[in-house]
Amino acid sequence: MKHTIKCLLVFAIFLFQACSNNQKMEDTKQQNALIFPKGEKITNGNFIGDVWLSALVQPDSLNQNAIGSVTFEPGTRTKWHSHPAGQIILALEGEGYYQEKGSPKVIVRKGDAVKCPPDIPHWHGASVNSTFIQLAITGREKGETIWLEAVTDEEYNGGLK
Amino acid sequence: MKHTIKCLLVFAIFLFQACSNNQKMEDTKQQNALIFPKGEKITNGNFIGDVWLSALVQPDSLNQNAIGSVTFEPGTRTKWHSHPAGQIILALEGEGYYQEKGSPKVIVRKGDAVKCPPDIPHWHGASVNSTFIQLAITGREKGETIWLEAVTDEEYNGGLK
Repeated sequence: MKHTIKCLLVFAIFLFQACSNNQKMEDTKQQNALIFPKGEKITNGNFIGDVWLSALVQPDSLNQNAIGSVTFEPGTRTKWHSHPAGQIILALEGEGYYQEKGSPKVIVRKGDAVKCPPDIPHWHGASVNSTFIQLAITGREKGETIWLEAVTDEEYNGGLK
Repeated sequence: MKHTIKCLLVFAIFLFQACSNNQKMEDTKQQNALIFPKGEKITNGNFIGDVWLSALVQPDSLNQNAIGSVTFEPGTRTKWHSHPAGQIILALEGEGYYQEKGSPKVIVRKGDAVKCPPDIPHWHGASVNSTFIQLAITGREKGETIWLEAVTDEEYNGGLK
């Protein structure tokens, strides 16, 4: 009888380990699910909190679009800013916020596309509890981004549409 | 003894099912990993094989970029074509090919960015054994895509750089 119990235990440990290894493989797959590198932490003072940028495409004389993958840790955001030729945001992961001056804040989720019109002050960032990864596609044909004042906690926590 | 063997079997089935349910949950996660919808099958004759398009951003007077997510089944491709204002391709999943007229074919993998210069005939598609998902960012300010001849099997299977 003792032998049978031992046998049962060994068998259970074997199955548990097989199951656990399978889980580890899946975790690795999830890690590999990141499409673009996280890049470098932004240190230019135009972002509040830890935000990371991976520059994917540089503008040139033939195509003036700059494309970057931006990773916002939960609670982080840009300053208010505007783009002379506008911007398109594509949400790749998590949940974030987007707000244009004078309009309510909107939630942006994985798979959403947002168009920021030229010269309209706006900010974007992660929601309180989610890391938010976005592609930013910014036309540089009319000049660089114009950085404005910080987004206050009141604005960041403000009402949703 | 018979009772113990039955007990052992029931226990094994229980662990196997727990492990299997865990795998199903992971499979669902992988499915949810698709960022953008697959969209509709393209039926305009400009693609060879089953290719799917999800239009994410339409051009307008303020921002002339069109953005689509394109899913190429293995072995499928565009015809040769060119864009008056160029195009940027961002590979989101799998492995594909890109070739400009007169240059060798190159492999494009998840995370890669490719710039197609204005007016340069080129084609892109999935490699033989991989579904390939890409974002296509196409400036429409100088007109629509110009479609050319089909990519032959010899061209598709041609030499790599």
